Amino acid sequence: MRWSWVNFRFSRLKSVMPKSRVESFSDCVIAFAITLLILDIHLEDAGPNIDNAGMIQALLALAPRFSIYVISFLICTVAWVSHHELIHDVDCVDSRLLWLNNLYLMWIAFLPFPTGLLGHHPDQPVAVALYGAVCAITCLCSFVLRWYASFGGRLMKKEIAETKLRRDLWVSLYSFLLYLAGMAAGFLVPRLGLFLYAGIPASYAISELVRRKGNGRAR
Amino acid sequence: MRWSWVNFRFSRLKSVMPKSRVESFSDCVIAFAITLLILDIHLEDAGPNIDNAGMIQALLALAPRFSIYVISFLICTVAWVSHHELIHDVDCVDSRLLWLNNLYLMWIAFLPFPTGLLGHHPDQPVAVALYGAVCAITCLCSFVLRWYASFGGRLMKKEIAETKLRRDLWVSLYSFLLYLAGMAAGFLVPRLGLFLYAGIPASYAISELVRRKGNGRAR
Amino acid sequence: MRWSWVNFRFSRLKSVMPKSRVESFSDCVIAFAITLLILDIHLEDAGPNIDNAGMIQALLALAPRFSIYVISFLICTVAWVSHHELIHDVDCVDSRLLWLNNLYLMWIAFLPFPTGLLGHHPDQPVAVALYGAVCAITCLCSFVLRWYASFGGRLMKKEIAETKLRRDLWVSLYSFLLYLAGMAAGFLVPRLGLFLYAGIPASYAISELVRRKGNGRAR
Amino acid sequence: MRWSWVNFRFSRLKSVMPKSRVESFSDCVIAFAITLLILDIHLEDAGPNIDNAGMIQALLALAPRFSIYVISFLICTVAWVSHHELIHDVDCVDSRLLWLNNLYLMWIAFLPFPTGLLGHHPDQPVAVALYGAVCAITCLCSFVLRWYASFGGRLMKKEIAETKLRRDLWVSLYSFLLYLAGMAAGFLVPRLGLFLYAGIPASYAISELVRRKGNGRAR
Repeated sequence: MRWSWVNFRFSRLKSVMPKSRVESFSDCVIAFAITLLILDIHLEDAGPNIDNAGMIQALLALAPRFSIYVISFLICTVAWVSHHELIHDVDCVDSRLLWLNNLYLMWIAFLPFPTGLLGHHPDQPVAVALYGAVCAITCLCSFVLRWYASFGGRLMKKEIAETKLRRDLWVSLYSFLLYLAGMAAGFLVPRLGLFLYAGIPASYAISELVRRKGNGRAR
Repeated sequence: MRWSWVNFRFSRLKSVMPKSRVESFSDCVIAFAITLLILDIHLEDAGPNIDNAGMIQALLALAPRFSIYVISFLICTVAWVSHHELIHDVDCVDSRLLWLNNLYLMWIAFLPFPTGLLGHHPDQPVAVALYGAVCAITCLCSFVLRWYASFGGRLMKKEIAETKLRRDLWVSLYSFLLYLAGMAAGFLVPRLGLFLYAGIPASYAISELVRRKGNGRAR
Repeated sequence: MRWSWVNFRFSRLKSVMPKSRVESFSDCVIAFAITLLILDIHLEDAGPNIDNAGMIQALLALAPRFSIYVISFLICTVAWVSHHELIHDVDCVDSRLLWLNNLYLMWIAFLPFPTGLLGHHPDQPVAVALYGAVCAITCLCSFVLRWYASFGGRLMKKEIAETKLRRDLWVSLYSFLLYLAGMAAGFLVPRLGLFLYAGIPASYAISELVRRKGNGRAR
Repeated sequence: MRWSWVNFRFSRLKSVMPKSRVESFSDCVIAFAITLLILDIHLEDAGPNIDNAGMIQALLALAPRFSIYVISFLICTVAWVSHHELIHDVDCVDSRLLWLNNLYLMWIAFLPFPTGLLGHHPDQPVAVALYGAVCAITCLCSFVLRWYASFGGRLMKKEIAETKLRRDLWVSLYSFLLYLAGMAAGFLVPRLGLFLYAGIPASYAISELVRRKGNGRAR
């Protein structure tokens, strides 16, 4: 039968598809998205003869954008570390994973827009909520990607315990819910939203660093 | 004879040229083109004291650009997956393939221009048609690249059946023709053109995902 | 003696330094420089209600920038293919090669500036000459890099014939001299300069493609 | 006990985490930061009918930005070479190294901002001092990263002598102190600051090139 033959060819192809290009493509996209964040920060109308006090004042006026830069960098960095660990645990790649991964990258690549918006309007409730919404959707995509790799497509390496897979899934889901909460809080009290947006990835990073303390150096 | 010796040296060189750098270079260019798409989306003249309603309205006014962003991301993503599969099936790389590949990348790297144009003028027939023309030319380059790898240069791995090669070639050619049709339709009815531009890569992705259903996890 | 020991450590380190990161870093820089070229092309002051004729006219007015985009893409592409072949033939990397390579990349990364300048002032003799000067310096850096790898540092694989190394060096030197000539010609007759700038990489590419004809598929 | 089991799983995971993705991600970020530097250099208000003398004058007026471009490129290049050598000597990667590396990349990715500021205000003491401050912080991050890899986490390959590790640490620390001095000098005499900022990476590069002289080609 013709179709089953096509299926056979595809399944053979699928099996040998290496994950190296998924890694390098994702690295590139996340690295670019991170680096693009800085493009939005520049002094706009400082005259050529600005004095020291004026320059310092102009730089201080950019403080919100610096904060947002650091927050977005932190969020992208957490996304990269988490993506790194997920793909590292994956055994082989099928085309659905490719598409879910691309969907995830689309939201990562979209992040410079709400970052820029928030940098210009750090106290604007809608801007704060939009930022949280994009972060929440990114986490949701990450959750779906992780769910598919772990359970839907069963693409993980065999030796990885189901307990660990479930635990990592819950962490993704928690981040999604936390960003949703941050979005709601940010719409009501913008400063609180910003604080939450910074706190979520920071607490993830700190919890990871603390938990691994005392392991010594594994070989 | 001197020339035949040069030829000999070249043929030896050609044979050992790895495809890894072609992959990483293409990944970088496609990833960068994708990430640049977002640079065109920004609020231009929102005052510092914009209220919630004004901000929501300003964001809604950007809706056409968001749609184009998603469409272009989808098109680039399909291009990347298709390129990934082609290079994966290639056995060795010769210099003509390098040049055809670079020609293809030139059109991918060009995509941010019609994307930006269409984002600013979503109802302008010429902008819609130009976008379709660039997509069509990109598909044509992809077709030529695939044709050369499969038949002109016979660079594919030996175990890949000719039926599959022909089938993939037809898919490339169909996309080219569909974009040409989309270009004509878009010139007459811009909205229809946009719908087609989104539908072509989406249907490709969906057909790929559906067809592979039920394969389970191939090793 | 202490210094000789440091030397020993360095020489040991130097020997094991892989060339893979030089490749990926160079790929990234060249790919970004290529993709950045498009950022300079955009319609500036087309009103929202522009009609078809106006849009076509506005696009035609961008024709010089499209031409420069294609020329710069071609030049970068030739640079990438040539760099690819050089590093492929290199056996190991020492720190001088790293620095010469970085110097070369600095001029590649600089190319978007004269490209943008030439796109805005295609008939301005100084802009045309500057473009040629940057291309010439890039070729000169490529020549020095190739000379160092081949003869100064003797880093090439042993099995590569000296005849081939000398021939490739001459090709680099010829391109440098041709760009110098193009620069002089472009200062006097700008259009002639542009023609030469496009012709040099194109003739390189064509000569490469033609010469390798008839080799069949080397394994 | 559940927690120790989780620890066990993590330590196993940590050990197998390859350093290749850290390399490629860092390469991308540094390459992108380098390439973005050029975006800030462009002629702003040259009319369409500018003559040769006017064009040359306009280009000469950009001279400070060209100088800063070269200095920043040099600094990033030194950072890349130094990072390359560090990661090359590292045996395995743990999550703290990932985070310290990301912190380091954050400052590298931030460099285009002070570069642009300094390019527009080359004689402004605050701009000069800010540039030095960012360079100093980058060096400090590099010092911490190197310290952690060498002593805090003991992640280096076993065969690397402690003398070399200490020596490299001191070099990082010296650069940090030199940039601090450059920052102070630049605040008082801007030109002197610029001279120091260029001199520090240049002297590093020269000292490296000279010291390795006479090694011949190590295998």
